Amino acid sequence: MNSAELIKQIEQKRSFLCVGLDTDITLIPSRFKTEKDPIFSFNKAVIDATLPYAVAYKPNIAFYEALGPAGWDSLQKTMEYMPKDVFSIADAKRGDIGNTATKYAQTFFDPTCAGFDFDSVTVAPYMGEDSVSPFLHFSGKWVILLALTSNPGSTDFQQLKDANGVPLYENVMRKAMEWGSADELMFVIGATRSDYMTKVREIAPDNFFLVPGVGAQGGSLADVAKFGMNKKVGLLVNSSRGIIYAGDDTAVSAAREAKKVQEEMNQLLDLYYK
Amino acid sequence: MNSAELIKQIEQKRSFLCVGLDTDITLIPSRFKTEKDPIFSFNKAVIDATLPYAVAYKPNIAFYEALGPAGWDSLQKTMEYMPKDVFSIADAKRGDIGNTATKYAQTFFDPTCAGFDFDSVTVAPYMGEDSVSPFLHFSGKWVILLALTSNPGSTDFQQLKDANGVPLYENVMRKAMEWGSADELMFVIGATRSDYMTKVREIAPDNFFLVPGVGAQGGSLADVAKFGMNKKVGLLVNSSRGIIYAGDDTAVSAAREAKKVQEEMNQLLDLYYK
Repeated sequence: MNSAELIKQIEQKRSFLCVGLDTDITLIPSRFKTEKDPIFSFNKAVIDATLPYAVAYKPNIAFYEALGPAGWDSLQKTMEYMPKDVFSIADAKRGDIGNTATKYAQTFFDPTCAGFDFDSVTVAPYMGEDSVSPFLHFSGKWVILLALTSNPGSTDFQQLKDANGVPLYENVMRKAMEWGSADELMFVIGATRSDYMTKVREIAPDNFFLVPGVGAQGGSLADVAKFGMNKKVGLLVNSSRGIIYAGDDTAVSAAREAKKVQEEMNQLLDLYYK
Repeated sequence: MNSAELIKQIEQKRSFLCVGLDTDITLIPSRFKTEKDPIFSFNKAVIDATLPYAVAYKPNIAFYEALGPAGWDSLQKTMEYMPKDVFSIADAKRGDIGNTATKYAQTFFDPTCAGFDFDSVTVAPYMGEDSVSPFLHFSGKWVILLALTSNPGSTDFQQLKDANGVPLYENVMRKAMEWGSADELMFVIGATRSDYMTKVREIAPDNFFLVPGVGAQGGSLADVAKFGMNKKVGLLVNSSRGIIYAGDDTAVSAAREAKKVQEEMNQLLDLYYK
């Protein structure tokens, strides 16, 4: 999916919501557990409930991988069920070099390999250019590179300043922007502080940001939009637990919570977009 | 496997060789391709050929993941075949936070999850403590944390110096050593420069280093041993392509190349260990 198609989705649904499919067998309502494939059945219910309000879905690969082949099968079915006009994110945070990176890219991008045709994959920058470039330049596909995350550990290295006072996450963003265009490269930006959002938008005025940490993790959606939105919206804001585990009747509770977020996003688009 | 058991293996085999199982269907000898599971059959042949000379095996997870469920199945069979007295490394370079990191750890460490019982997994440090700690403290298991890698892109971020002139990889090592002991934490250290090896051994005198980049990638094994060996050996040196793709008759060629490396390691152990 290219950026024009993504923006069109956002304009049509008046939403920049990404629903995180962190599907955990121990957390899903009990009625799914009697189904043949509880994980897929739950994901299907979440997608059905939230599709009017979400433009993107982000399966957290760890949750599927930890189940072995059955987990990969549930993910496969989920991705086959997912409508083609939503943006899909393999939240895998892979990062390795050369032909290994190419294998990871093929896993998620090339349907003739592992059967997946994701629009994007999250990638870790630690190993540098030759660990990121192999994921770039797949036609219509995106790298979503870790830049500034919202977890406590983000202070350990991401915010370490170099001799010029420039923090690592800023060096990551500036370097990565030399490797790929804003039509193939997004950044993961934690939402917890609005001053950071202002800063990263200055660094990368045109790139989309994938923003976790709104809701359960405490970020303000209004601040994210106020300080992070650009002329092409430029934001995908993720919510996982706050939507998918909002109640026992997933069809009702997930729809209700997604709709709430979409309604706020609609107002924020009115304020800051066009 | 704990460090005493690993060192015992090294002493018995007079080797600190790790064989990388970067098994690629397009690169294995044609005779394996007619077998029911060519990837497993090839891995089995490599293990049989190299077991007298190697103390560790390192499947590169990307190569299996890219094949979908069949690839995970080949990996499963490989790990079931692998003798329990060698050290196994899931080269996965995972890195995510909290419960997601726990899921990745379970994938590779907890046989009741995805069926794997690896001794160790490679982990990326970018997200900081809460992305590394969930992998630590599994009894008898190890985190092998990316520190200084040997690829060209390692200059992009790993060698960025902070305001005190301390490069990122050094900050990563020093911080990580606060999170886990030398009995559960190793570092990935690229072998290409002996001055770096001296430096990282000063920083982490007691930790094991997993050293790729010897052989095909140009590092000198003698230098690695001279500058990197410690009182408990402290080194696992990996070779992948140079051993597993050394010839068409894998049983002969992989054994021959592994034996060559082991013989050099034997001499280096004489020189620098005890």
